[in-house]
Amino acid sequence: MNLDETRPLPECAKFDSNGLIPAVIQDEHGEVLMVGYMNREALERTLATGRVTFWSRSRKEFWVKGEKSGNTQELIDMRVDCDLDCLLLRVRQSGPACHEGYRSCFFRAVDADRTLRVIGERWSTPEAMYGSPKREDPRESQAS
Amino acid sequence: MNLDETRPLPECAKFDSNGLIPAVIQDEHGEVLMVGYMNREALERTLATGRVTFWSRSRKEFWVKGEKSGNTQELIDMRVDCDLDCLLLRVRQSGPACHEGYRSCFFRAVDADRTLRVIGERWSTPEAMYGSPKREDPRESQAS
Repeated sequence: MNLDETRPLPECAKFDSNGLIPAVIQDEHGEVLMVGYMNREALERTLATGRVTFWSRSRKEFWVKGEKSGNTQELIDMRVDCDLDCLLLRVRQSGPACHEGYRSCFFRAVDADRTLRVIGERWSTPEAMYGSPKREDPRESQAS
Repeated sequence: MNLDETRPLPECAKFDSNGLIPAVIQDEHGEVLMVGYMNREALERTLATGRVTFWSRSRKEFWVKGEKSGNTQELIDMRVDCDLDCLLLRVRQSGPACHEGYRSCFFRAVDADRTLRVIGERWSTPEAMYGSPKREDPRESQAS
């Protein structure tokens, strides 16, 4: 019997050596939109506000999804996996989830020759969403 | 322009400091079944065989999903996220994906009071799948 399971979140969650837990984000239609990372406080804020909040590993700051772009994620419900070290969040996604303007961050499929092919629906552009040219490192522009 | 994107997998994938990339596993109906981790060779084997293969972080060995339990994952297709540091695999899952016997590893929902509640469908038990009593640490029994 794992006693952790009887404790409420965020206490029962298992964070990695960097204090993070991955969160798979899925919309109400079943489309997987992205994977982000939460520390204990980001998880606490997400639960308290219903507004999905990550910890940005690159910028080392809290990242309220949609704070800059307006493309927010409203929490519908949350699940925890068997090992308590991964979260699954169903959300109402406003607009594109991806900073590249696609509905989902998983907008590229792997072809038989193993190259990548864009298959996702592009709803916007980084320029339209953030008002600045696309930055070279996508992690930098994945601000919100 | 990110030149990585023009290279085939596994070359274009970005592995973390432990040499791993997370892989979200989703069935053909849209249900998220689990999240596992692949190193370069596990990804290579998955692409080559069409049989989903992870790297077990706890046992430090390759983990062909279903090798012991028979609950295999046959790859339908694969997607890569915008940062090239996360994979999404659609699979045909034979039987339960979770070593606890549930269809999905995400078999517990978070209630309003933040405690966990089992909502998943239990298809089997660890005893039936592995022929031994449930082990204390789920990571240990998450062999296959």
